[in-house]
Amino acid sequence: MSHMNIDPDNPTPLYAQVEAVLAASIADGTYAPGSRLPNEDGLIERFGVSRTTIHKTVQNLIKRGLIEIRRGKGTFVTQPKITQELTELSGFVEDMQALGRRPSARVLDKQVLPASDTVARHLALAAGTLVVRIQRVRLADGVPLSFDETWLPKDLGEKVIGNDLETEPIFALLEQKYDTPLVEAEYRLEATCANETVAQALGVEPGSPIFLIERTSYGAGHQPVDYEQLHYRGDQIQFVTRLARRSKRG
Amino acid sequence: MSHMNIDPDNPTPLYAQVEAVLAASIADGTYAPGSRLPNEDGLIERFGVSRTTIHKTVQNLIKRGLIEIRRGKGTFVTQPKITQELTELSGFVEDMQALGRRPSARVLDKQVLPASDTVARHLALAAGTLVVRIQRVRLADGVPLSFDETWLPKDLGEKVIGNDLETEPIFALLEQKYDTPLVEAEYRLEATCANETVAQALGVEPGSPIFLIERTSYGAGHQPVDYEQLHYRGDQIQFVTRLARRSKRG
Repeated sequence: MSHMNIDPDNPTPLYAQVEAVLAASIADGTYAPGSRLPNEDGLIERFGVSRTTIHKTVQNLIKRGLIEIRRGKGTFVTQPKITQELTELSGFVEDMQALGRRPSARVLDKQVLPASDTVARHLALAAGTLVVRIQRVRLADGVPLSFDETWLPKDLGEKVIGNDLETEPIFALLEQKYDTPLVEAEYRLEATCANETVAQALGVEPGSPIFLIERTSYGAGHQPVDYEQLHYRGDQIQFVTRLARRSKRG
Repeated sequence: MSHMNIDPDNPTPLYAQVEAVLAASIADGTYAPGSRLPNEDGLIERFGVSRTTIHKTVQNLIKRGLIEIRRGKGTFVTQPKITQELTELSGFVEDMQALGRRPSARVLDKQVLPASDTVARHLALAAGTLVVRIQRVRLADGVPLSFDETWLPKDLGEKVIGNDLETEPIFALLEQKYDTPLVEAEYRLEATCANETVAQALGVEPGSPIFLIERTSYGAGHQPVDYEQLHYRGDQIQFVTRLARRSKRG
């Protein structure tokens, strides 16, 4: 049996020929992101080369970031992270639509409770003032991507939780139904680890990396209207932005 | 012995009185950030209240984020994270000076090596082209804050590594000594975990949270001049920015 694309007489080393074929199969989607590659025996049979050759090929593809070994499970095509712009105030549904991903939501809890010091400070209320808290898991193409906690002032929040929050984005409700246009937001970005609550909501192990965005959105007159803690799965997303150099420096 | 500031006849519950005294001592720096609080027995003796009372006080101070328990070590005043603006292209020394922190650096390695696919792509070179890599630990007030890997095109890089990189910031060298003004940069932000190399450089446990910034800085004519991977300690820093809402939305 001849092994397509692999030519022992070609001066290119065999491992590099196999590497090129596999890289092309990954690039053209024959092996899709997240799919499992054949095991070493399968690759040896397919390409008709030695175990040493396949081993070198696999090591090179790992180094190139194209595949990854998941312990005890096999070798998989790397799933590229979602790359999300961080350049303007936007909500989850808007972000996913811009990326061509299907957004959905699961509501875990919605209730009226007294504001903690942190929540009160961000909403410019006295600590202990009643507020509405909404806890949701946000999904992209059915995969849990973020555990979102949203706090709203009580009057506004009680109106918002009267809606179906699995289908209605809160930003859209605020702006279109409750006449509360958003103007800008302050973002606080941190790398942290999933605690039990966050891990359970996202279906990851406690201690998994979390990209935490604390966001306070302001309406007209710099009035805070929405405080959020967005716990994104660190293994699933990265954020990009561009910053300019200030012209004068010492 | 009378216990200052604690009055059993005051209608405010004892735990709240103790809480107020301790919160004030933290606020005025009597208990400085990062310092250890007396243990429960010490607090009971100092305030002349019951263990139940002290326990409730401690729980409340933890909830308020003022103190934290480090397992096996005791109760400590929370060390506030460094809060760094992410609004313009700036280097570590500039960032620390803006925050009133003393920057320093340890050079771990500097060498000429072939560019990986990733490095080559960001510097707009062919993979395998020789580049200069500089590895440094950056410290704020003597505490390791970031493990920085910097890649520069070979010609420029060889000039840069001729300088004392423990004292000379690379941005300053590029702009002031080598006539390479920086115009803007693309930032990629991720939450990840420290691998062995990063953990050792920063003196943290492997798996600790890392705020990873990948940054490509561009000079005149959108020429990439500097590609960096900045591994910040997630427990030490947070980044803040403000974003505006786009005016028209569906």
